Amino acid sequence: MIIVMRDDASQEEIKQVLARVEELGFTTHPSRGAKKMIIGVIGDLNREELVESLGAYPGIEKLVPILEPYKLAGRTFEEDRSIIEIKDGVCIGGKEILVMAGPCAVESEEQIRLTAESIKAAGATVLRGGAFKPRTSPYSFQGLEEEGLKILRRVANDTGLAVITEVVDPRDVELVGNYTDIYQIGARNMQNFFLLREVGKTNKPVLLKRGLSATYNEFLMAAEYIMAEGNYNVILCERGIRTFETYTRNTLDLVSIPVLRKLSHLPVVIDPSHGTGHWDLVAPAARGAVAMGADGLIIEVHPDPTKAMSDGQQSLKFEKFASLMEELKKLAQAVEREI
Amino acid sequence: MIIVMRDDASQEEIKQVLARVEELGFTTHPSRGAKKMIIGVIGDLNREELVESLGAYPGIEKLVPILEPYKLAGRTFEEDRSIIEIKDGVCIGGKEILVMAGPCAVESEEQIRLTAESIKAAGATVLRGGAFKPRTSPYSFQGLEEEGLKILRRVANDTGLAVITEVVDPRDVELVGNYTDIYQIGARNMQNFFLLREVGKTNKPVLLKRGLSATYNEFLMAAEYIMAEGNYNVILCERGIRTFETYTRNTLDLVSIPVLRKLSHLPVVIDPSHGTGHWDLVAPAARGAVAMGADGLIIEVHPDPTKAMSDGQQSLKFEKFASLMEELKKLAQAVEREI
Amino acid sequence: MIIVMRDDASQEEIKQVLARVEELGFTTHPSRGAKKMIIGVIGDLNREELVESLGAYPGIEKLVPILEPYKLAGRTFEEDRSIIEIKDGVCIGGKEILVMAGPCAVESEEQIRLTAESIKAAGATVLRGGAFKPRTSPYSFQGLEEEGLKILRRVANDTGLAVITEVVDPRDVELVGNYTDIYQIGARNMQNFFLLREVGKTNKPVLLKRGLSATYNEFLMAAEYIMAEGNYNVILCERGIRTFETYTRNTLDLVSIPVLRKLSHLPVVIDPSHGTGHWDLVAPAARGAVAMGADGLIIEVHPDPTKAMSDGQQSLKFEKFASLMEELKKLAQAVEREI
Amino acid sequence: MIIVMRDDASQEEIKQVLARVEELGFTTHPSRGAKKMIIGVIGDLNREELVESLGAYPGIEKLVPILEPYKLAGRTFEEDRSIIEIKDGVCIGGKEILVMAGPCAVESEEQIRLTAESIKAAGATVLRGGAFKPRTSPYSFQGLEEEGLKILRRVANDTGLAVITEVVDPRDVELVGNYTDIYQIGARNMQNFFLLREVGKTNKPVLLKRGLSATYNEFLMAAEYIMAEGNYNVILCERGIRTFETYTRNTLDLVSIPVLRKLSHLPVVIDPSHGTGHWDLVAPAARGAVAMGADGLIIEVHPDPTKAMSDGQQSLKFEKFASLMEELKKLAQAVEREI
Repeated sequence: MIIVMRDDASQEEIKQVLARVEELGFTTHPSRGAKKMIIGVIGDLNREELVESLGAYPGIEKLVPILEPYKLAGRTFEEDRSIIEIKDGVCIGGKEILVMAGPCAVESEEQIRLTAESIKAAGATVLRGGAFKPRTSPYSFQGLEEEGLKILRRVANDTGLAVITEVVDPRDVELVGNYTDIYQIGARNMQNFFLLREVGKTNKPVLLKRGLSATYNEFLMAAEYIMAEGNYNVILCERGIRTFETYTRNTLDLVSIPVLRKLSHLPVVIDPSHGTGHWDLVAPAARGAVAMGADGLIIEVHPDPTKAMSDGQQSLKFEKFASLMEELKKLAQAVEREI
Repeated sequence: MIIVMRDDASQEEIKQVLARVEELGFTTHPSRGAKKMIIGVIGDLNREELVESLGAYPGIEKLVPILEPYKLAGRTFEEDRSIIEIKDGVCIGGKEILVMAGPCAVESEEQIRLTAESIKAAGATVLRGGAFKPRTSPYSFQGLEEEGLKILRRVANDTGLAVITEVVDPRDVELVGNYTDIYQIGARNMQNFFLLREVGKTNKPVLLKRGLSATYNEFLMAAEYIMAEGNYNVILCERGIRTFETYTRNTLDLVSIPVLRKLSHLPVVIDPSHGTGHWDLVAPAARGAVAMGADGLIIEVHPDPTKAMSDGQQSLKFEKFASLMEELKKLAQAVEREI
Repeated sequence: MIIVMRDDASQEEIKQVLARVEELGFTTHPSRGAKKMIIGVIGDLNREELVESLGAYPGIEKLVPILEPYKLAGRTFEEDRSIIEIKDGVCIGGKEILVMAGPCAVESEEQIRLTAESIKAAGATVLRGGAFKPRTSPYSFQGLEEEGLKILRRVANDTGLAVITEVVDPRDVELVGNYTDIYQIGARNMQNFFLLREVGKTNKPVLLKRGLSATYNEFLMAAEYIMAEGNYNVILCERGIRTFETYTRNTLDLVSIPVLRKLSHLPVVIDPSHGTGHWDLVAPAARGAVAMGADGLIIEVHPDPTKAMSDGQQSLKFEKFASLMEELKKLAQAVEREI
Repeated sequence: MIIVMRDDASQEEIKQVLARVEELGFTTHPSRGAKKMIIGVIGDLNREELVESLGAYPGIEKLVPILEPYKLAGRTFEEDRSIIEIKDGVCIGGKEILVMAGPCAVESEEQIRLTAESIKAAGATVLRGGAFKPRTSPYSFQGLEEEGLKILRRVANDTGLAVITEVVDPRDVELVGNYTDIYQIGARNMQNFFLLREVGKTNKPVLLKRGLSATYNEFLMAAEYIMAEGNYNVILCERGIRTFETYTRNTLDLVSIPVLRKLSHLPVVIDPSHGTGHWDLVAPAARGAVAMGADGLIIEVHPDPTKAMSDGQQSLKFEKFASLMEELKKLAQAVEREI
């Protein structure tokens, strides 16, 4: 960390800061520029606490962090790309791009069975579907809960797919874990630290969605929460950030793919359905994701989107999903990946 | 809701939409403009579900909601301003502006006792302090937990202050409720719907902080979640939103005060400490809040901010807080309020 | 447009609004919902003025525009995609993807000549380079001005490339027009309406960059300014928007490609250099752009980025650009386009 | 500036960077932390160019600026607050808060005369009104141009007010200067550097509006452009920034008042009309501005907002403006200022 002192900081103020930093166990490297005194701080620092403790000194103008605050999630910890096994040889992070698909919400066994068969035929390997639905309105459909989990598991077993489903409450981690192969943590829960810790205590893969206004740093720190508990099987998922543009539901930050792959060894997945909010933008967004190096995709598919209980406007019909998969296979080849 | 059809929507597509809307129990009012067919939809609608179900019809260009999605939190439900009693006649929402103050985190009984005595003398009536700390880094200080709650309660009882403290996990609602007078829901948990429901089942006042990127609508819908469970004692707290500007920790949206007071009957509180992130911006922000009609303030105060375990850079020393309170009393008078 | 009256609007207030709208020459379609009166307004409206004139009526809660405010730039005006000829059969908007490349600033004839030869060999057809540089700091290098324009023209003629260069001052439109084949309007000037009008009076193609915080609507309205003067040869260029994320220079909104192609018939170009701000993110962003349907790319290339007078950090070296072009050719084929 | 090298930077890469920085005329202070090499750079640097030239070295991870890029606009240049004389003893920047008021657009002499008399009686000293209107739509009313300027001057002379009006085209600076006392530079032109330079060559006060997505740094750099030409009479005006919230026209960043007064010696003005976009939010926003230390206000007032040709929805009627002025006088006193 670099401490920048104010132009008018007194000798006394500088001395106090130096003393405090050394008291906290760091080595200091003061140097005086043309106008300002700056102090290099060296040690195995935990940035957040140091910042908060130093920020109150009146002589300090600003604190500039140099090291990334995450450790386990960063490239320094693990130089190679992580390959995470979902189930029976189905992996993410290698040459093959993992495709997860299914409806927003589990509505009935028939809906799930039709979907599973259709996405399987098109080449997807993981079945998605929500049993516990966090909804903006308390008056909206909140999901089939355990009954939905049972349907997912049953259909997945019958069709040979893996299951991903969202867990929203730390009290449900065990229950959901009885049925799913991948825990999904939703965007609104990206900093629900107690939930992160609970899934961190398991050893199942966790797909962590980026919060609507989370920086890359915060996103990786949320992954760090899970990893710090011992579960290194974290998959990062970009699903759109909130900007001033309201035509699309969110602004899908596709450049996050190469950025996150540069900063971290964890696999990166794109959700073009939530990322755009319009079914006719899903295919172009998915094509972009593959061309830019995504390790996986998670796409909403529904037998009849006009009857969907949620997210109908951004769900693909079976035939659209199947033809998208054909396009993606060609693109994957062009960038030396496989679907 | 207004349904806007695409310019090129066919008669068949229009008929399908009309049929579906009527099937859902609404009355339709189609009318053809110069270029487009638009369909008015009338009924006691639950917007979210309707939108999601209709969004998939190919002939539809967009859906325009007309009614606010919240009911209990809105002015239609309650025209007068809500006055919420915290404890023993201490209220928020009336002429008097409620001031809550104290450190970010409970660190020791001595720290809390010194702070409580000082803020009480300056005119505050509620003591704040965190016992469970949601932190960006898993390696940061996470709070004294129940021991912190005990300290807060003991000191508050001794000094005649009320207590506000954050609850972060639905499993802790009962435990925290044994010690606090007001539940605080942090910004990161504004859409942690399971936590909202748990505090909604109690009858204690809940101070709900606006999420970093929550619209007014989403903020009021989160309040609605609590109220829908029966607890109408919700206090709205603006604490800064995330924008492109990074000089301040957040951008404090002070205009939210008159907006929220127009849309809702619930009291509105400003947090100038998190809202700015710099101790020298806290006083001007607090002055603005009072001048603009805030019903309360929540301010970080610490005996020695340079030794604080969190948020030192945005905490006020005792004497600064006391002199700010003097300024605020004058301003309150100028706008016909009281502190 | 739809006018939504307040719940408590009086009969008198409603009557005044109806009278005013009719006085402005529109037909009104009032209808009463469960809670609110809404008024449909039909006619060949100019939205902006109507909104501004009505917004002051106290009985009005909000105004909801239904039609897009742009005409010439929209799909209703022109259903087919526009193909714009740059020069001698070089076109944009058809099957072939146009690649423009070159340094941020013209620094010397040698720099431009080396670059032109290299990008031509790699397959680019338009040479970019700035002669008038709008710079954040008044103390930075401001460009070679007319001398730079001459260099661009001379080298382009010798190598058989077309030229694109920025015009920043309405007084320079004629001068710049003497040398360039495409006018570039920079992001900071997207709403410099006097400049837009001047280039609108010419018949040369104009590449219009999206402002840092411009919505799609505003972007297309800026195109409309140029087209309203008679110049329909407008090329839209997304180059990153400003969000809370600061790791990248901007957030490149790649989903704007399918959105703008849905809303407008004008060609869409992506600038992955400004859009990301890091040379190592340019290639993945360019790949995404091609996969998502961009009609063109504009990429910064420099003989020695470490010596560049501007934008060195986001410029590609010759060999990187050449190998990127090879990748893009393969991707273009996979999506049935050509480079 | 601090240069942070990548963890894996080679000795050769470090040597090249050191050589280049020294070649550019700076002194280097390399120091090796636990993980990274960082290099302090000392000298009278022009940040922008240095950054752009260094950013391309592959061994560099990031560049961290330490000094503010502005000089004349900063507190280091001028420690006292600047007091700018508008005309005949009317000043801004001192104890008195300057109030500017009038319609968005000059529509007729009668409209301006009625407004001038009314705002003068209420205590305003500067008359605002637009003669050249930059409009989002090319089909909207674009202003009375020189005829509008004449009306403003005539009425101002008769009533003893000063005039502020916008200049939008560098070619009009002289013309507008013949009539106005203060040049207004609109938000969309904040980085129209050629316009900034033109007004910088005059010695009339310039009210510079902050761009919709301009950081404080960029805002002060735009002021620097004007000052670098010799005109130090720059007034900063915050008028709302663009965020995800769309209920208000913009998000008024009132905390910019203490921030800009900390970073700069220039006076700070708030525009609560554009900042909120709703007439019923103007008064609370203006109250906040005064309480937070604004040096001036610029407020839209119109004889009949329902007939206004622009911005009717955010304009105050005469009686509302007069009663707001009474409130502001009381608030000004409470913070030891005067109106």
